[in-house]
Amino acid sequence: MSTLQVTNSLTRKKEAFQPINPPFVGLYVCGPTVYNEVHLGNVRTFVAFDIIYRWLLYSGYKVRYVRNITDVGHLTDDTEEDKMLKQAKVMQLEPMEVAQKYTNGFHDVMDLFNALRPSIEPQASGHIIEQIEMVKEIMDAGYAYEANGSVYFNVEHFNAEHGYGQLSGRNIDELLSNTRELDGQSEKRAPLDFAIWKHAAPEHIMRWPSPWGDGFPGWHLECSVMSTKYLGEQFDIHGGGMDLKFPHHECEIAQNKGSNGNGGANYWLHSNMLTVNGTKMSKSLGNGFTPAELIAGDHELLDQGYSPMVVRFFMLQTHYTSTLDFSNAALKAAEKGYQRLMKAMVALTTLTYENGQVDASINGEVKKAMEAAGEHMNDDFNTAMALADLFELSNRINALANNQQHVGTLEEDTFNQLKAFFPKFITEVLGLLPETTGGDSHMDEVMQLLIEIRQDARSNKDFSTSDKIRDRLKEAGIQLLDGKEGTSWEKA
Amino acid sequence: MSTLQVTNSLTRKKEAFQPINPPFVGLYVCGPTVYNEVHLGNVRTFVAFDIIYRWLLYSGYKVRYVRNITDVGHLTDDTEEDKMLKQAKVMQLEPMEVAQKYTNGFHDVMDLFNALRPSIEPQASGHIIEQIEMVKEIMDAGYAYEANGSVYFNVEHFNAEHGYGQLSGRNIDELLSNTRELDGQSEKRAPLDFAIWKHAAPEHIMRWPSPWGDGFPGWHLECSVMSTKYLGEQFDIHGGGMDLKFPHHECEIAQNKGSNGNGGANYWLHSNMLTVNGTKMSKSLGNGFTPAELIAGDHELLDQGYSPMVVRFFMLQTHYTSTLDFSNAALKAAEKGYQRLMKAMVALTTLTYENGQVDASINGEVKKAMEAAGEHMNDDFNTAMALADLFELSNRINALANNQQHVGTLEEDTFNQLKAFFPKFITEVLGLLPETTGGDSHMDEVMQLLIEIRQDARSNKDFSTSDKIRDRLKEAGIQLLDGKEGTSWEKA
Repeated sequence: MSTLQVTNSLTRKKEAFQPINPPFVGLYVCGPTVYNEVHLGNVRTFVAFDIIYRWLLYSGYKVRYVRNITDVGHLTDDTEEDKMLKQAKVMQLEPMEVAQKYTNGFHDVMDLFNALRPSIEPQASGHIIEQIEMVKEIMDAGYAYEANGSVYFNVEHFNAEHGYGQLSGRNIDELLSNTRELDGQSEKRAPLDFAIWKHAAPEHIMRWPSPWGDGFPGWHLECSVMSTKYLGEQFDIHGGGMDLKFPHHECEIAQNKGSNGNGGANYWLHSNMLTVNGTKMSKSLGNGFTPAELIAGDHELLDQGYSPMVVRFFMLQTHYTSTLDFSNAALKAAEKGYQRLMKAMVALTTLTYENGQVDASINGEVKKAMEAAGEHMNDDFNTAMALADLFELSNRINALANNQQHVGTLEEDTFNQLKAFFPKFITEVLGLLPETTGGDSHMDEVMQLLIEIRQDARSNKDFSTSDKIRDRLKEAGIQLLDGKEGTSWEKA
Repeated sequence: MSTLQVTNSLTRKKEAFQPINPPFVGLYVCGPTVYNEVHLGNVRTFVAFDIIYRWLLYSGYKVRYVRNITDVGHLTDDTEEDKMLKQAKVMQLEPMEVAQKYTNGFHDVMDLFNALRPSIEPQASGHIIEQIEMVKEIMDAGYAYEANGSVYFNVEHFNAEHGYGQLSGRNIDELLSNTRELDGQSEKRAPLDFAIWKHAAPEHIMRWPSPWGDGFPGWHLECSVMSTKYLGEQFDIHGGGMDLKFPHHECEIAQNKGSNGNGGANYWLHSNMLTVNGTKMSKSLGNGFTPAELIAGDHELLDQGYSPMVVRFFMLQTHYTSTLDFSNAALKAAEKGYQRLMKAMVALTTLTYENGQVDASINGEVKKAMEAAGEHMNDDFNTAMALADLFELSNRINALANNQQHVGTLEEDTFNQLKAFFPKFITEVLGLLPETTGGDSHMDEVMQLLIEIRQDARSNKDFSTSDKIRDRLKEAGIQLLDGKEGTSWEKA
């Protein structure tokens, strides 16, 4: 098999993935700021990295997957109020109650979309000592200065020695020309400098003692600190949404290099944004729906609700580095596609091998499609192409299940491979599960009985009974499908 | 209604509960040490305090419920190795990976048993700065001393000024007479002294810088620190399993008083232990089963599996301050009891009021039973007695549902109260839910259709069809119950 290729934001190239210390892989992904309900853009990001995590596991790597929880210090610029604290005031709660509430909500949503849990999920507020230590290191190295109890990273000085802007492809002169002059009130020496430790005003609840007085860490710092603590100064993969590339990840790299000389990750991976009907999803435009609204169909832009597995399938149809566009038509198509895949997975379980006339061409196609799915995943986790391979296989499975084609057209070995590969790839690599698991194991038996009674009634020309069964099921949202192979049913 | 009475371990009395700042209540419960799978004793403890939390909420209090996660420092004595670190070595994982794995597992089990999530779930490792600050305060007050980079609490000195042992009813002289002499190698000045900060040996992974060199906090310290941080120096209720009363809670009180003069909580509540067939449940005796084993019935002492809701119901049949004894007979009886309660809850939803001849005695009994359930909860959360009240009500509901008694024997007002009270009390106060929620919403509609078709067939003397329906359902594990009110169904 080919080796894994990944699109590295740092080099803007697709590169062969070579872990520092195989079979171990260190993976760090920027997690949510827990001051608000998780939005669909977050879900896309974490599903994208869930796929990456799953593929690394499937490929035999031993992955330590670290995804942080930002529960303090998220300031988008140095003059803004901490997001957590602001929300705590609005809700009249202790900040940690706000953090807990939305951390729980985030976990529930991740479980719903079947995203595997990370190996370690460290909280920013739980690593204040380590953050203070890194501030000291950066100061000792000369890349930061104190002003009124806050500590700022000196971007121009860092730039002169190490270069700043490599990840985001920004040039410090351009950045400077786009920045307003400091108004003379600022304690920063230069407009690009950013806070790595902030002085806490007396009314600030989230505060810790430090060598510079009571304060709290700057937002960018936590990820440098927690990735270093749990994965080392130089590790394999750092991921996050594209919106974090600048300034967050750029500042991380500066902090890492400024404190210990290493740049953090070798591979920086970024997932792309969401649009709705071609327009950027945003609260202010009124075209942003939450995961719950999408599932319930409870938004004016949605015709109906879509289950978490359908949404997951839908996301996988687009490469993670491309924009993902939500529309009713695309979601409906995804629903059909997802159901087709699930049906093939069930149909495959009913098949057993029988000897027949092997068709070398068909046998070869099946083998090729299985290989291709893996190759496509190795090509920068191309789930869209891997799904196409799975659909080719599912067409073949349906032909076998419908007796349009004899199982013996496949070699026994190929058949057995297919039986193992197909469900494993769908559930373990893509994380797509059937939706009617658990719940009610009796439903299939009861429906089978109803279908038989309807058949009996039709044979006896008792059409009032057979019509009643069909109509009442329809009312209940169940569709009977009469086919050559007999009658099956599905939920509408 | 009466006021809430609670059994306060501190005074060994049942006392009226008076919160410091009503309607707010601060509740702290010692959470799990996440180095191992949660055991059934934990489940009992956390279900007991879940009931207490729910009853406070139902009574109109605004509760801040803090339950910690011990992810560092759990030494049962000062010479033992940290439990987290020991397990991390066994599993060859970073300690925080172990903590994450078992924290996730703990949350899953709590969800399974429908225990509400706490308002804040702080981690010991996330509050090292605050712990160092409290160590400093205790040292400043003269109740602790440093030795070789560790800091010990001076129990005899504390005892002389404040008294030590009040909670557990132990006398320091007795404690001393039961303690081995220090062997001369110990850095402790006296045998009862306990570590509040431990020096970290060079190979110790979990370590933080402190004024006394790199180290980690003593186990008892975290709860003093986190309860103080999130609930204040003096707060309302501190809870935990009875095994924590000494030394853990006794040491907490000493630390609290030693650092700020306050004793922490006004009310100390303790839940009792588990036995199996009358013997203390323990791993070494081979009579300890995990929650998963109990649910699956996968242990030689279990005849069958019991669902989480049945186990929860079973636990509520015993007062939380009494020993809870597991046996097959008792669990089976609980299963029947739980099902009876759930059936009455469903039956109640089908009832609508009709005027009739009010029976003042029956009407009075129903009103009294509803009041009594609340009174019993106010009597130290007596769920066993409250369940008896609910069974009285469920008998009445069944009589109404079976038309043995006309709904009009009740006043309309009483009937409406019952309709609101009964399901609310069961689901919100006791946290008992029907087990077939979620899953498959179509099952009821499909079964209703089958029952109608069977009825049609019988009317038409088409007994082959009606028998087929009954027999096939029976094969599928579904029992049809023909009653006066028509046919209902249940899973066998």
